[in-house]
Amino acid sequence: MKLIGYFRSSAAFRVRIALNLKDITVEHAFRHLRRGEQSTPDYAALNPQKLVPALVLDSGEVLTQSLAILEYLEETHPEPPLLPKDPVGRARVRALALIPTADIHPIQNLRVMTYLRERCGQSEEAAFAWSRHWIETGFAAYEASVANDRRTGAFSHGDQPTMADLCLVPQIFNAGRFKVDMAKYPTLKRLFDTCMKHPAFDAAQPARQPDAEP
Amino acid sequence: MKLIGYFRSSAAFRVRIALNLKDITVEHAFRHLRRGEQSTPDYAALNPQKLVPALVLDSGEVLTQSLAILEYLEETHPEPPLLPKDPVGRARVRALALIPTADIHPIQNLRVMTYLRERCGQSEEAAFAWSRHWIETGFAAYEASVANDRRTGAFSHGDQPTMADLCLVPQIFNAGRFKVDMAKYPTLKRLFDTCMKHPAFDAAQPARQPDAEP
Repeated sequence: MKLIGYFRSSAAFRVRIALNLKDITVEHAFRHLRRGEQSTPDYAALNPQKLVPALVLDSGEVLTQSLAILEYLEETHPEPPLLPKDPVGRARVRALALIPTADIHPIQNLRVMTYLRERCGQSEEAAFAWSRHWIETGFAAYEASVANDRRTGAFSHGDQPTMADLCLVPQIFNAGRFKVDMAKYPTLKRLFDTCMKHPAFDAAQPARQPDAEP
Repeated sequence: MKLIGYFRSSAAFRVRIALNLKDITVEHAFRHLRRGEQSTPDYAALNPQKLVPALVLDSGEVLTQSLAILEYLEETHPEPPLLPKDPVGRARVRALALIPTADIHPIQNLRVMTYLRERCGQSEEAAFAWSRHWIETGFAAYEASVANDRRTGAFSHGDQPTMADLCLVPQIFNAGRFKVDMAKYPTLKRLFDTCMKHPAFDAAQPARQPDAEP
């Protein structure tokens, strides 16, 4: 399999953590998002959504959308599991995963920030405030969801990493770029610190990727 | 079970279609989003994300995030299936479902449009153009993904409705409010027409809900 990603993409980061946790070795290829390499005709032919990541299977089939890729990896490489066994627990983990994946990241990713500046005439400062607003809104919801729930353990759900942690951690990296004060989200901070001690998370972080830039 | 929704919410609409397809009867309750009823303390205690829908189980547990709810319904009420059997097909359906769910709707939902107008000083016209831009970007990706794929059938994946159709149809309803020209997306138009002939989709549409307004 080949993962096409970008070191700073939160969505690619989620998939890298899953591959590490499940000990799946893949070839890595890169599209430089700030240079628009996700919009070239050859990449659009591979992924009409013109987003990273894409996972190219050995059969040649191309999987897109990080959450769909995570579910595929879970179904085809079930150990260690990234979802609990019980349906209610699975729904909780998926709902937590969707907070960064659907309700934060898509609203403040590169293409949206570009539109805000170029077509809505927003300053760098206003675009920055926008991004921070949606991160903080989502983090407040995540914090309220995990802080007093007995199902929260060392990780977001129990004592092993789940899809929720895989989606949370890249968003916290992203939040650092927007100077979000994590002290407001003590449970998220604790979960992040626990995750980053895990080699699968550490090795997946942007700075450790071959295409990383300062 | 009780579904807390709002007639015009795309996310609640997805869940209503699934309940109809699987012939699951639930109690319906409503939060009027334009009156801010999703942000009251009693609802925030139920769903800290302050979004609809929420599915309250008979056990009292509350499920949130429409895609997590769809997966829960699929796991607990497997017939008729909303996902194919093969992992690559499942990944395709989930990736299609995520185009409206993650890459269109969160960028142009009520709270984002409100922020654009009130805090970015955008006119009604500019907010309208914003919404249309993200719908058209996502629809172009969906169209390119289904138009020439042999797995596309009467529905987005094969000849039975899947999660992909459940997520596409509410977004096409929403697109109508933003005057998106569906002639540019002939496959989506065909899929929509097929879906809307199905009683499960028809009965779930906003105008048929008890809380509907003109």
